[in-house]
Amino acid sequence: MKNIVILGSTGSIGTQTLDIVRALPELFKVIGLSAGYNLTLLKDQIREFQPRMVYCASESHIEGTWTLPEEMASDQDVDLVMVASTGKVGLKSTLAALRNGKSVALSNKEVIVMAGELVIAAAEEGNGIILPVDSEPSAIWQCMRGEGQPVRRLFITASGGPFRSLTLSEKNQVTPEQALRHPTWVMGRKITVDSATLMNKGFEVIESHWLFNMPFEKIEVLVHAQSVIHSMVEFADGSVKAQMGPPDMRLPIQCAMSYPDRVSSGVTPIYNPLAYPSLTFEKLDFDNNPCFPIALEAGQKGGTYPAVLSAADEEAVHAFLKGKINFGTIHELLNDVLDSHEPMFDVSLESILFADEWARDRARQFIARSG
Amino acid sequence: MKNIVILGSTGSIGTQTLDIVRALPELFKVIGLSAGYNLTLLKDQIREFQPRMVYCASESHIEGTWTLPEEMASDQDVDLVMVASTGKVGLKSTLAALRNGKSVALSNKEVIVMAGELVIAAAEEGNGIILPVDSEPSAIWQCMRGEGQPVRRLFITASGGPFRSLTLSEKNQVTPEQALRHPTWVMGRKITVDSATLMNKGFEVIESHWLFNMPFEKIEVLVHAQSVIHSMVEFADGSVKAQMGPPDMRLPIQCAMSYPDRVSSGVTPIYNPLAYPSLTFEKLDFDNNPCFPIALEAGQKGGTYPAVLSAADEEAVHAFLKGKINFGTIHELLNDVLDSHEPMFDVSLESILFADEWARDRARQFIARSG
Repeated sequence: MKNIVILGSTGSIGTQTLDIVRALPELFKVIGLSAGYNLTLLKDQIREFQPRMVYCASESHIEGTWTLPEEMASDQDVDLVMVASTGKVGLKSTLAALRNGKSVALSNKEVIVMAGELVIAAAEEGNGIILPVDSEPSAIWQCMRGEGQPVRRLFITASGGPFRSLTLSEKNQVTPEQALRHPTWVMGRKITVDSATLMNKGFEVIESHWLFNMPFEKIEVLVHAQSVIHSMVEFADGSVKAQMGPPDMRLPIQCAMSYPDRVSSGVTPIYNPLAYPSLTFEKLDFDNNPCFPIALEAGQKGGTYPAVLSAADEEAVHAFLKGKINFGTIHELLNDVLDSHEPMFDVSLESILFADEWARDRARQFIARSG
Repeated sequence: MKNIVILGSTGSIGTQTLDIVRALPELFKVIGLSAGYNLTLLKDQIREFQPRMVYCASESHIEGTWTLPEEMASDQDVDLVMVASTGKVGLKSTLAALRNGKSVALSNKEVIVMAGELVIAAAEEGNGIILPVDSEPSAIWQCMRGEGQPVRRLFITASGGPFRSLTLSEKNQVTPEQALRHPTWVMGRKITVDSATLMNKGFEVIESHWLFNMPFEKIEVLVHAQSVIHSMVEFADGSVKAQMGPPDMRLPIQCAMSYPDRVSSGVTPIYNPLAYPSLTFEKLDFDNNPCFPIALEAGQKGGTYPAVLSAADEEAVHAFLKGKINFGTIHELLNDVLDSHEPMFDVSLESILFADEWARDRARQFIARSG
């Protein structure tokens, strides 16, 4: 029985995490729930799961023991922290959990994008364990399980998003409603837009760089429209392993939660190879997806660049969803902010948060000018 | 440094095994070579690798210490035995090696098809290790590496052979030359014909049943014409792992030889996903490939049936290659022999060899009648 805390319990990953808990009540006990603003759903969850610790960012009090997320994440009774928030809010909780030796199921990828070095250092310092939840890093992690053998390359697959066949100028006309309709994955709003710009794939490359200690030049991205092969690992002898399944987040969520065991919950989908009679691979078109090379460059430069990338992207996506900038302006905003950034390479929580604030400020100025 | 003996050193798998030894001389030392009849090539190999023990089935003496294969396989200096013979000749050597605690790289699949129970028992008795060399079982074995988690299903892939699009009556016209041209794999003559009839796939199901202790109903075969996904394993949580690579036997050979390490030899091929832009899956057509269900049924019945299947198939393939029976008669021969078999279910080396002799005799009678 694992005691679990879920940060971001009312979001897409949070609610699917609770589906797994419902299906496997003998394995998981919810002892903490934290959410951003969906108080109605959070109250339902509290009634059902009776967690000892609760938090809602938009409120100042609700029934249960009011506990800040970073305190919840490092509470002595906690075995597993599901960080299912989005944007930068999960950072402090992730660091606190890892420094206290917890297992952290990390869905909130911005955390490792903005502060990969700090997250890895916190895990080493406190013997914490990072369990990838994101589908592609989870696939890589599963392929590496039990190998302990040298890895030559990672192949991260990308659905290509809903606008794969549009030109850059056609993409300029894309509305938020269109961007929120992903062809294969059902996900939260921020990540769905990030998938449409391919920024999400850039984040996954940075995430995989840190999680698997892999140089950027050994990470390749392939367009695989069916989202069935979730990623692949090439070992020293040339053997390639892939992890496959229908596009459904409940499998990677459950894999992280039940690690090191694999269990049958009845919740994760069953893969029928004949339901996907052709699995395709295509080269990723960098020119037509400018956010991807921008992300890659920020990741390779390191220091505070990835934190700036993540913060500027968060502001850009929110502005796009509110109709303040158009789809084709997102990469222009990122270029503006990154090009004017004066980086720090001595990375600390302070320098990361300072860069984050600076980048948001600069992004907001850009958005104001575009309005 | 592993001391290696190669049984069947002049065949397709034997010569590729020596390619790996040549590329990794710091890891392998050849101390025994045995071949069937290709004396010229065997002499070249002996000159190059200077093995202490030698054997050639068609001769009574050659330079080096004349040693029977089963003695070679259990010699005290041997670490690894590559059983790369075909048909039943590898059986006694495999049993001897396993009973003496050797690692056996098993390419000669008829050995485990005809006597799976004995082979597994010999490995348990002597703490021997069976390392699959066949591409599909190797893929399954690689996918299971380090998991130690319950498996729900195995998916064995099949290229479908060169006659995938022919009807049963069109297949009747197939010549030995046509049957020996496989669309994706370069292999020995017997296995190439077995691939064309899909008998080889039936053998792999039986092989996987024994190697992975998996009930027949949990083993599915899928047609995958590109031979890039070599097989897949579905775990208890629904996660599927696949092992992939260009169709080239040197990778599974090297995987078995270097186990538990993965090493870069420069000999195994590099997989480029973009070189195979579409990977397809189709249902296997049982009606059009009658040898496959015949093999499956023999495997499921157990006892001496699989030994009879293997022996009758060996006779049938040789008769087909000599022009004595036609391609579409192979399954009729198998049905005739299997239907008239009086099985023994108390399996021993004696009962297996008796069933083998009986089946060959019955098969030869069938061939004589067909001539």
